[in-house]
Amino acid sequence: MERIKIILPDGVVKEYDKGVSVYDVTKDISEGLARVALGAVVNGDTKGMQEIINEDSTFRVVKFEDKEGKAIFWHTSAHIMALAVKRLFPEVNLAIGSVNEDGFYYDFDKKGSFNKEDLTEIEEEMKRIVKEGHDLKRYELKQQEALMKIESLGESYKAEFINDLQKGELISICVLGELTDICIGAQLIDVKPIKAIKVMQVAGAYWRGNENNKMLTRIYGITFPKPKDLNDYLNMIEEAKKRNHVKLGRELGLFMQSEVVGQGLPLIKPKGTLIIKLLQRWIEDLETEWGYRQTMTPYMSKSALYKISGHWDHYREGMFHIGNPDSEDVLSLRPMTCPFQFTIYNDDQHSYRELPIRYSETSTLFRNESSGEMHGLTRVRQFTISEAHLIVRPDQLEEEFKGVMELQQYIMKVLGVKDDITYRFSKRDPKNKDKYIDNDEAWDETEQQMKKILDCLSIEYSEAEGEAAFYGPKLDIQCRNVWGKEDTIITNQIDFSLPERFDMYYVDKDGQKKRPYIIHRTSMGCYERTLATLIEKYSGAFPFWLAPIQIKVLPISDRFNEYAENISSVLKESGLRVEIDYRPEKINYKIRETRLEKIPYFVVVGQKEENENTVAVTSRENGNEGPWDLDMFTKRLVNENYIKYNYHKKTDIK
Amino acid sequence: MERIKIILPDGVVKEYDKGVSVYDVTKDISEGLARVALGAVVNGDTKGMQEIINEDSTFRVVKFEDKEGKAIFWHTSAHIMALAVKRLFPEVNLAIGSVNEDGFYYDFDKKGSFNKEDLTEIEEEMKRIVKEGHDLKRYELKQQEALMKIESLGESYKAEFINDLQKGELISICVLGELTDICIGAQLIDVKPIKAIKVMQVAGAYWRGNENNKMLTRIYGITFPKPKDLNDYLNMIEEAKKRNHVKLGRELGLFMQSEVVGQGLPLIKPKGTLIIKLLQRWIEDLETEWGYRQTMTPYMSKSALYKISGHWDHYREGMFHIGNPDSEDVLSLRPMTCPFQFTIYNDDQHSYRELPIRYSETSTLFRNESSGEMHGLTRVRQFTISEAHLIVRPDQLEEEFKGVMELQQYIMKVLGVKDDITYRFSKRDPKNKDKYIDNDEAWDETEQQMKKILDCLSIEYSEAEGEAAFYGPKLDIQCRNVWGKEDTIITNQIDFSLPERFDMYYVDKDGQKKRPYIIHRTSMGCYERTLATLIEKYSGAFPFWLAPIQIKVLPISDRFNEYAENISSVLKESGLRVEIDYRPEKINYKIRETRLEKIPYFVVVGQKEENENTVAVTSRENGNEGPWDLDMFTKRLVNENYIKYNYHKKTDIK
Repeated sequence: MERIKIILPDGVVKEYDKGVSVYDVTKDISEGLARVALGAVVNGDTKGMQEIINEDSTFRVVKFEDKEGKAIFWHTSAHIMALAVKRLFPEVNLAIGSVNEDGFYYDFDKKGSFNKEDLTEIEEEMKRIVKEGHDLKRYELKQQEALMKIESLGESYKAEFINDLQKGELISICVLGELTDICIGAQLIDVKPIKAIKVMQVAGAYWRGNENNKMLTRIYGITFPKPKDLNDYLNMIEEAKKRNHVKLGRELGLFMQSEVVGQGLPLIKPKGTLIIKLLQRWIEDLETEWGYRQTMTPYMSKSALYKISGHWDHYREGMFHIGNPDSEDVLSLRPMTCPFQFTIYNDDQHSYRELPIRYSETSTLFRNESSGEMHGLTRVRQFTISEAHLIVRPDQLEEEFKGVMELQQYIMKVLGVKDDITYRFSKRDPKNKDKYIDNDEAWDETEQQMKKILDCLSIEYSEAEGEAAFYGPKLDIQCRNVWGKEDTIITNQIDFSLPERFDMYYVDKDGQKKRPYIIHRTSMGCYERTLATLIEKYSGAFPFWLAPIQIKVLPISDRFNEYAENISSVLKESGLRVEIDYRPEKINYKIRETRLEKIPYFVVVGQKEENENTVAVTSRENGNEGPWDLDMFTKRLVNENYIKYNYHKKTDIK
Repeated sequence: MERIKIILPDGVVKEYDKGVSVYDVTKDISEGLARVALGAVVNGDTKGMQEIINEDSTFRVVKFEDKEGKAIFWHTSAHIMALAVKRLFPEVNLAIGSVNEDGFYYDFDKKGSFNKEDLTEIEEEMKRIVKEGHDLKRYELKQQEALMKIESLGESYKAEFINDLQKGELISICVLGELTDICIGAQLIDVKPIKAIKVMQVAGAYWRGNENNKMLTRIYGITFPKPKDLNDYLNMIEEAKKRNHVKLGRELGLFMQSEVVGQGLPLIKPKGTLIIKLLQRWIEDLETEWGYRQTMTPYMSKSALYKISGHWDHYREGMFHIGNPDSEDVLSLRPMTCPFQFTIYNDDQHSYRELPIRYSETSTLFRNESSGEMHGLTRVRQFTISEAHLIVRPDQLEEEFKGVMELQQYIMKVLGVKDDITYRFSKRDPKNKDKYIDNDEAWDETEQQMKKILDCLSIEYSEAEGEAAFYGPKLDIQCRNVWGKEDTIITNQIDFSLPERFDMYYVDKDGQKKRPYIIHRTSMGCYERTLATLIEKYSGAFPFWLAPIQIKVLPISDRFNEYAENISSVLKESGLRVEIDYRPEKINYKIRETRLEKIPYFVVVGQKEENENTVAVTSRENGNEGPWDLDMFTKRLVNENYIKYNYHKKTDIK
């Protein structure tokens, strides 16, 4: 019998007979592990427990907690949904199903749509199928045989799908109860691990995502190995919906969207603007303190600049063009700031003594997102980031990269999202090289150099192939949002390629011209997205230093408007943001409305307060605090504002 | 004999025989006036002294000091230049000449160009022609006769020009010495008033301004009625050249331009950015204090928005379009902020109690200037302004307009340009109504309302027809620059038209929906242009609070670098901008270079200073000030910074 080597994540190498199953290897590692394992990643491909291994392989067991485990779990769940629908609605034609970060879905062609009762029935039927306890059987057919098989079932969408594949290709067929389906990817051995099922919602979806095709009905579902997980998930969704930045943004008057202006182009209203401007000034001041110099460069350029940088060859589709892109005179809106700051660098000669030079810009960028992708403040066509390029000598690279990350970690800390972040090392997709600048050697070298620096800084990171920028690998700082998903909020890149393309140099000690390295980095990856993150993180109850209105003054009647104005003046003089509610409404009505605005403090003023020069304070955190001397109250708030807003002094935090 | 009425500017009406000359009327007013007059504006047209009047007319005498007088003077001078060139270079073909704000020019077709010696000779020849003392004779020919006449002289450019005119049209022919030329516009009677002549420079110019035509040589010249005026002018030009913002901007490292990026798209370097950011924060803070609320709205929109505002019909040519302008999906870059802020206003219902609402934005705008028009920071394709729209009730209009102007005057005062400004009331061009929103009644009413407010505020202003915005009249605040020209740096508009088009309303006391009025205004008309103005105004020696580097520290050798750093830290801690010159150069060399940078203070530090904890101060204003205790020096500068930068408190200035 031929033997094969299996290499485990800890480097241990085991030997098995060729044709050993994933289950057998897992069981050999640990019986306990085999009970909870759903499959394994074998030489980079996800395989189910029943699949066999025929060659030397790396081997990593996956459970539901791993994203590959979820994919296996939900893939099988999608087949269960298809079976349930076929049982309840035999006339329905099956299209195709898949999994995503939030469970699975399946597309159906049904006259009319599914109503709420249908969905409940489908969920019940799915539970029944699980109770029946089926195994999943798989076999392979050649493309022509598979086509005949599926046509005989009357499934025209699947037949079309198979028909488009290459003749002779092997197609996986899976059988679950009375359902025979085609199947791509790993599956569970049987349906038993599925302990909780929820059919979530329906939506329209074009067959094969093409809007010229028929609109089908997509049903979304999610399943879990424990009922508690489902409960937690549904609670999280409920909570996230309440915190949804689009909903809260509208309710709190932070931003708006307009059909007339267009998708992906939000209008930031005064209260939202106040927050973004506070953040921008804070970051600019912080960067100045950390030795960055701000620039202001134009939002468009002739194509000549993007041809040098490589954007023209690798990013043109994502850019907006004024005029004909084939003409020399075309002006294109910039998707990144790099080529502009490099142009500034190249305007002067630089000595080795001047380096590192750190250019930063509160920079507006434009990306031609397609309409389907745009959403609130998180997917937009125009956005502003704090984008910097550090031009460094080779001997400064590591120290500067470290400094970059220190600053970023500090910023995340002040914003209160430090515990929500993880790091992702984004590399080139080696199977898709034409998306990137063509220089294998430089890519390998840069990825290695970056890895070395990350290891040196003891940064824990995951790796993601295909997420690099077209000119180099990235370290993405990912922030887990209220939906449990990861958004990239900051990126860092090490770039050996663009200095070459822009012919950038410095004059070294020895009088020779040398190439610098470049660190691309953001400190606030996108102000619009950061505002969305903060809205959702804080449910709109912003920290004191960021609250658009910090104190609301509520006179109990017109007679105390003048005293309210005095209070407002005193607080404003101290740099605080105050609003007076002059409306001739009952005080309880005013209080109720003020609470909805989530303002950190409101103070009620009437005869007693005016006589005693006090305010009756209610704070968001402590509730009713009773009367406060105005002077004391002002000092307290100034202190609270100062601590948070000036919490950035480099000297304070080291 | 038929009599006609002549109405003088003071309203006095005089009667003359029909066919009276401009000269006779002028002499009748005053013999002294007739000696210095160059012509008159008769019923809106400029006429020479020799021209006759055949109908009832308004009549205003013009002298060299008036722009119409200069036009007459320089028109004749251009003919003199043509004659001089023909005498010296008989083979040269004449194209056409004209006048501008800086004298006159004439285009010639000559093999090769004119060299410096040629220009000197031409100037000498022009002086000789003036000495010869010719009269200017004029007569009219029908188009066909004029064509024959000019063709007989071999002047093919002029022949082409006449050929394109309408058959039967009357063409003015002017004879000066042996030169016969065609002639449009008023002329001097004879060449005697011209007492000073300077040929300035040559440049290339396409025939009829069309780049497909032949490139001709344009010679520029200027003439004056007094030799002293020419001297003053040449001195002003010399001084202005030294202050030229493009030259100084490059020398001081404030901004750069790049052929690769494109024309009209300057890149602001860190020092220039620092100044603009300081100005922007100052203005934003000031506006907040004056009750404005900042917005951040997108830089592009679908055409639907511009169709509502009227930009699509009246301003489309000046805008940048992404995609096909005829398609509904086209996105166009905004030339103004108004429609976006109106969209925000319309997102909520507003009670009369909330008005006035003052939206402001540090707003980037884009205008498709043609290549010939772009220059440095003053004519650009992308620029940033502080643009506000005040939405007011009719009863608030006057008070709010007044407030707007108070704020502007205050800003001009702090910037030091208050004495350089004049006001221009810009009205619609009644002969060119299709450039404007079509509503005669509203235009008349708005222009009258605006005039009333200006008179009420006792603002002295000039009037300019054809300078209004397409939706309403403007009050432009004009700033005289170092070239003696006027730039518009701020504009105010009263708008009765767009509230209608956007269907904006507020709910009045009586529960009825009512239309608000809108004041459009800028507080900083264009930050790029303001930077140019300040560079030229201060010759790059910016006021302390705006200087990118406020103090430079010069250690006399490496041994005092540490002490220099201590000083720098102390000053920076106090919010001052400091740079250390670490270069291992001789101290005198460092001092010389520092002076060129026009930094307000530099301090030299060596052994003595380190021992005594002092700095040896040299200030831009007072020169060498000797040793200063570091602590005292810091306090002094903080005070200087504070006074200037915080000089904006509304409470301080009222």
